[in-house]
Amino acid sequence: MSKMEQDLKLQIGAMEAPEFKDFAKAMADYIAEYLENIRDRQVVPSVKPGYLRPLVPEQAPEKAEPWTAVMADIERVIMSGVTHWHSPRFHAYFPTANSYPAIVADMLSGAIACIGFSWIASPACTELEVVMLDWLGQMLGLPEEFLARSGGEAGGVIQGTASEATLVALLGAKSRMMHRVKEQHPEWSDTEILSKLVGYCNKQAHSSVERAGLLGGVRLRSLAPDARHRLRGDALRDAIEEDTKKGLIPFFAVATLGTTSSCAFDALDELGDVCNDARVWLHVDAAYAGSAFVCPEYRYLMKGVEKADSFNFNPHKWLLVNFDCSALWLKQPRWIVDAFNVDPLYLKYEQQGSAPDYRHWQIPLGRRFRSLKLWFVLRLFGVENLQKHIRKHIALAHLFENLCTSDERFEIFDEVTMGLVCFRLKGDNEINEALLRRINGRGKIHLVPSKIDDTYFLRLAICSRYTEDSDIQLSWAEVKASADEVLQEK
Amino acid sequence: MSKMEQDLKLQIGAMEAPEFKDFAKAMADYIAEYLENIRDRQVVPSVKPGYLRPLVPEQAPEKAEPWTAVMADIERVIMSGVTHWHSPRFHAYFPTANSYPAIVADMLSGAIACIGFSWIASPACTELEVVMLDWLGQMLGLPEEFLARSGGEAGGVIQGTASEATLVALLGAKSRMMHRVKEQHPEWSDTEILSKLVGYCNKQAHSSVERAGLLGGVRLRSLAPDARHRLRGDALRDAIEEDTKKGLIPFFAVATLGTTSSCAFDALDELGDVCNDARVWLHVDAAYAGSAFVCPEYRYLMKGVEKADSFNFNPHKWLLVNFDCSALWLKQPRWIVDAFNVDPLYLKYEQQGSAPDYRHWQIPLGRRFRSLKLWFVLRLFGVENLQKHIRKHIALAHLFENLCTSDERFEIFDEVTMGLVCFRLKGDNEINEALLRRINGRGKIHLVPSKIDDTYFLRLAICSRYTEDSDIQLSWAEVKASADEVLQEK
Repeated sequence: MSKMEQDLKLQIGAMEAPEFKDFAKAMADYIAEYLENIRDRQVVPSVKPGYLRPLVPEQAPEKAEPWTAVMADIERVIMSGVTHWHSPRFHAYFPTANSYPAIVADMLSGAIACIGFSWIASPACTELEVVMLDWLGQMLGLPEEFLARSGGEAGGVIQGTASEATLVALLGAKSRMMHRVKEQHPEWSDTEILSKLVGYCNKQAHSSVERAGLLGGVRLRSLAPDARHRLRGDALRDAIEEDTKKGLIPFFAVATLGTTSSCAFDALDELGDVCNDARVWLHVDAAYAGSAFVCPEYRYLMKGVEKADSFNFNPHKWLLVNFDCSALWLKQPRWIVDAFNVDPLYLKYEQQGSAPDYRHWQIPLGRRFRSLKLWFVLRLFGVENLQKHIRKHIALAHLFENLCTSDERFEIFDEVTMGLVCFRLKGDNEINEALLRRINGRGKIHLVPSKIDDTYFLRLAICSRYTEDSDIQLSWAEVKASADEVLQEK
Repeated sequence: MSKMEQDLKLQIGAMEAPEFKDFAKAMADYIAEYLENIRDRQVVPSVKPGYLRPLVPEQAPEKAEPWTAVMADIERVIMSGVTHWHSPRFHAYFPTANSYPAIVADMLSGAIACIGFSWIASPACTELEVVMLDWLGQMLGLPEEFLARSGGEAGGVIQGTASEATLVALLGAKSRMMHRVKEQHPEWSDTEILSKLVGYCNKQAHSSVERAGLLGGVRLRSLAPDARHRLRGDALRDAIEEDTKKGLIPFFAVATLGTTSSCAFDALDELGDVCNDARVWLHVDAAYAGSAFVCPEYRYLMKGVEKADSFNFNPHKWLLVNFDCSALWLKQPRWIVDAFNVDPLYLKYEQQGSAPDYRHWQIPLGRRFRSLKLWFVLRLFGVENLQKHIRKHIALAHLFENLCTSDERFEIFDEVTMGLVCFRLKGDNEINEALLRRINGRGKIHLVPSKIDDTYFLRLAICSRYTEDSDIQLSWAEVKASADEVLQEK
């Protein structure tokens, strides 16, 4: 018997449907139990680097194990080393989304497991994304000229992260400007033009903006913000004029709505005027704060958005859609398509051109069916409950702010507008560094610091969808007790 | 009452634990039903572009809907427009993975929903990944110098796609060469060095390699393969010599193991010698075929792998780990870290340096807990069953090959080594284009074409883990019947 004949007879002894159902159901119970009681777990584990390797075998098993063996290892191997981002005691970084509807949607996405790189590769995958980005854009009050329903080329797309969205926008801007300059100066080479391109962002912009510049091989200038850490129109105008005089070509600017350090908002309306005058591509990075625009009362913070060329925010941060789901809208996706278009025969199909082929709107080729998460979350929460979620988080931040300002040893570092409170002990950086060490060292809550212009401060972000007033009271009690200790020792 | 006080009282009327359990369990049942009977569905839907929008409301609902309403819409809105990649009738592109253990693992990943950009952000997320990439590397027979267990800096990391892995490798190669050239020529500027860098790949390499070059802003040369579509050592050596004479600086080469068009294997052993002699970074792109190396009898195809600097394959293609899970190993990750390192204070932590901070090993900052999928799949299948899965797929491809060669109207275009059969009707391209149109038009099975050196051919990939002999017989009957029709009409 040939190898082929032998191999055709192989029986794969793997998990079949009945065991899958048992396993998935046991996991659903485990997940509900985990999330409903997450408050009781130590927020950051006390493991040391290298803790995990001794807990598992050196090699993969030769034979299939039963699912119950895997289930039994979850607490021992995994949970013992997890930082619980969804605990109300977790106040580090920014929130990351987690919701029951999104988890179930991902199950379905995993079962369909299509790769939606073109329309034909799974029409539902492309089309639901187009429509969901229209739903979402309307919820935020984005101008119609960003939406697919406006009938033109514009529309939204799901990226993996805001880093990728910024890079995609930068590449679009680069391709538009290259095209424009070549029309005016057909004798200039690509390298020559590239070496003249210059982009701009707030000094407080996210590190991924700097990375996008590095990756795109173009110069990016970090501009000084005003006293409230906002990039203003004048600063950008001056920079553009200065660079233009030097013979450089300004092509791209990033407006950050909600900086990572202190949740400051660049003056979008002013930046928009400057960019439109100078024909510079304006990209809005509202990764965290963008979710708040589902509440009309916060839209004043994105005044001028109609002047932008691209707009990005992360439903996977604050809008209860699990990672990864970063929403990017483009008025003129043609420039991205132009930058990326590499179209081998095996990806061509008959209806090409009648629906967006999202592979040309992103860095990777492959893409999961991520719009299912949006669909499930938007329907199972409804706009109303998502608004409540945002409003409640912001109110909780103000509650902490009030507690903090009621203690005269503390000061607020930057205005509280969203779910982030930046605060510090009045005094030098050392005492605040000691305070943070003490807070995290006590192990009840978890915070990270930041520093602007040599002033070190603590960031308390409201992260969990389970957070209630009493949790904030507890977090404040921890901060206060830590301050008592640190000041006493001093 | 202030807005804060009002907002603190908000009750979010969303899905709670009991409804989640019901929903998740109903979804598990639906998924099992879907996958076990997937053979009965039409593989490519007959919808036209734009089919979905009229099926859903124009806006997101204001109030939360019950989960049963969403469940009821899945067949109507989604499944009516899905291309069923896991049907045994689906033979397009390459397989994408789908397995029960991976779906359950993703549920847990969604519940923990940590963002593992640094060790402290969730130690389990980083550490399980380090160990799983060691398990996987050993299963493939990768040399120890690629593995973290070897004790040095080397190790593996999960990327989203092979596109990203290639880009990461290219950026590492670029950073290594820039460093080296600057030592020798401290007077040269970055732009000057960059403009001299040149990389190489097979003309048959994946379109993402060309894209990586575009993104990285460096020249990539596509070299002509031999008659069997393999890039050979001589071709690379000649190109490097030629470019060096011109004053260019060769820095990077991609060896493809299993090209997308015809699953050809570059002569890795030869390319390795050339690259090592010329101190050129050698990256191995084994996106599809790499999974086959879990079977020792196919490792001859990666002979010379110890000479490479980086190695990548996609468990999310052929190793039953759902997308996205692209495994990349690096001997010297320091060059990538060096290219990417942008380290703001809010991401720093005490134990820094004692475990890999994977954010420096990838393009985005954020990352999901993807190693859970690997852990679940490797344990619940065991090495033995994953080997059987690969062997059976390859045997099914040979079965189709035999059926094809038994019909004298057909010819095989390229050697069948993995789960892909490239075939055509003897004759011109037109008849083969007509054949493909007819096959896909009949609607029973789905294939895509490719073209090499003006020869158009059809690709039949074995994709589904449900495929049996009888499915291949059916697919062959469809091809044969389509050929009968097309040849009769001619």
